[in-house]
Amino acid sequence: MSILVVGSVAFDTVATPAGRAENILGGAATYFALAASYFTEVRVVAVVGEDFPARHEDILKNHGVDTRGIERAKGKTFRWGGQYLDNLNEAKTDFTELNVFEKFQPRIPKEYADTKFLFLANIDPTLQTAVRREMNGVRLTGCDTMNFWIQGTPKELAETLKLVNVLLINDTEVKMLAGEKNLLRASRKVLTMGPQALVIKHGEYGATIFFREGAFGIGKHPFRAPALPIEEVKDPTGAGDSFAGGFMGYIASQGEINREVLKRALFYGGVMGSFAVEQFGTERLQNLTREEIDARFQIFRELTHLE
Amino acid sequence: MSILVVGSVAFDTVATPAGRAENILGGAATYFALAASYFTEVRVVAVVGEDFPARHEDILKNHGVDTRGIERAKGKTFRWGGQYLDNLNEAKTDFTELNVFEKFQPRIPKEYADTKFLFLANIDPTLQTAVRREMNGVRLTGCDTMNFWIQGTPKELAETLKLVNVLLINDTEVKMLAGEKNLLRASRKVLTMGPQALVIKHGEYGATIFFREGAFGIGKHPFRAPALPIEEVKDPTGAGDSFAGGFMGYIASQGEINREVLKRALFYGGVMGSFAVEQFGTERLQNLTREEIDARFQIFRELTHLE
Repeated sequence: MSILVVGSVAFDTVATPAGRAENILGGAATYFALAASYFTEVRVVAVVGEDFPARHEDILKNHGVDTRGIERAKGKTFRWGGQYLDNLNEAKTDFTELNVFEKFQPRIPKEYADTKFLFLANIDPTLQTAVRREMNGVRLTGCDTMNFWIQGTPKELAETLKLVNVLLINDTEVKMLAGEKNLLRASRKVLTMGPQALVIKHGEYGATIFFREGAFGIGKHPFRAPALPIEEVKDPTGAGDSFAGGFMGYIASQGEINREVLKRALFYGGVMGSFAVEQFGTERLQNLTREEIDARFQIFRELTHLE
Repeated sequence: MSILVVGSVAFDTVATPAGRAENILGGAATYFALAASYFTEVRVVAVVGEDFPARHEDILKNHGVDTRGIERAKGKTFRWGGQYLDNLNEAKTDFTELNVFEKFQPRIPKEYADTKFLFLANIDPTLQTAVRREMNGVRLTGCDTMNFWIQGTPKELAETLKLVNVLLINDTEVKMLAGEKNLLRASRKVLTMGPQALVIKHGEYGATIFFREGAFGIGKHPFRAPALPIEEVKDPTGAGDSFAGGFMGYIASQGEINREVLKRALFYGGVMGSFAVEQFGTERLQNLTREEIDARFQIFRELTHLE
């Protein structure tokens, strides 16, 4: 079944120990859409400026992504610059030029109205809530957020969280959101805020999914997927969004939501995140095959599988 | 088969967010021996002072641990004080009184000469090398070390590493030992220094075992065991030594060394580490049953198991 992602499409300028890339295609919705496109039909709602070249949109279209929801506004596309020279696990932002993204008002094309799976990438929670309310026929909503909204707009974020099924954030964000240092207690607290499931991304250590009791009609025991030890992380940008794309894309492809599907989705999330960081920007995500993805899925499975 | 551990037996004074404990039984060899005692017969070589009470030695004896190798020297027992008030993942040392441990010269009782499995806990690498040379009939030697020896006595440590089969250290120590920031490349480098297998302990994220190609006649693919998310870590002291005790103890109990045994051993290591931190000092390790251990092993297995 198709999935809709609402989020940023951007130009990124990135410096890492492996090199530097300027004005490459980036943005949470871009990474998510490319990663999810290997599993299911993807629709995008975003905004770009007049400087956004057709060849970038073609990258998405070539992966079967429906780009009718990408609005072209007067002005320049959102630009972000950052570096990972000291720490591959955390970006140091050099500049943020919101440009057309500053006044982003997501408009859902009427052709998208039947979408059953929704992912609210990391944008203003007020916009996330509005989109979720408009898409009131969805079966499952995933959501991302970040420290900026957790600290800056906690009330608005609380409203959003009441409307989402799965929240995907990292260790630091879980603890910040719950105001609690212990990860397990923090997770329990976040699960009282609305989501039935919480996916915590641990970077190179994988990810854990925690369930509210009775969520999706399944047990409440957590599940963890490992990450692959990677020889060279060229560019960590987009790893989390690619994870979300693999996770949500696999769920949408299955139609049914049960424990085994969510477990496999967690592995596919890790797989897509691990591919994303192997090249700068979206390069690796542009040139994958489902066979490569499933081969890595097997490696991940073997990594922790006991007979 | 029996396993011999050579290392410290100490009195610890520990402060954590959960409370404070003074002069409790501690030391790497103690944690290791108690954890391993649930799997196999354990022998200890260590030194204590005249102030070491019989009831502490009885704790080990009650677990079937052979304490004939614990030498009683003139003077006071090794004392360590530390706190985890700001960070549960790293101890801040308040004081170290080496006392009789300063002149520790491990003496292997003749009754231990037939031991087939050896664990060199974190002590001076010169002593580790001497013990390993003396125990030249062992089938498998495990070894721990720390930043103090990696930076302070690198040549001596290099000699030790040539003589051990499995090195068990944490992420930071692997990178420090290899002089390499990327964990996978660092692991490869460490595996050229002597050990056939490297177990990297990731704390709350579990552990990974990397193999040198051809090691133990098995494939070189790494294997990862998750850790259990724990609600309250009361006292992290000894988690790594308890991990080593579960890991090495399980291997010694199997006799055979193959990939499946090493994988299960990694899970048992994580299980014992997770129990250790639930109470102050060795309290939890003193009062376990094999049934509890195997029940948690199943929980760990379920945590990452895909059908």
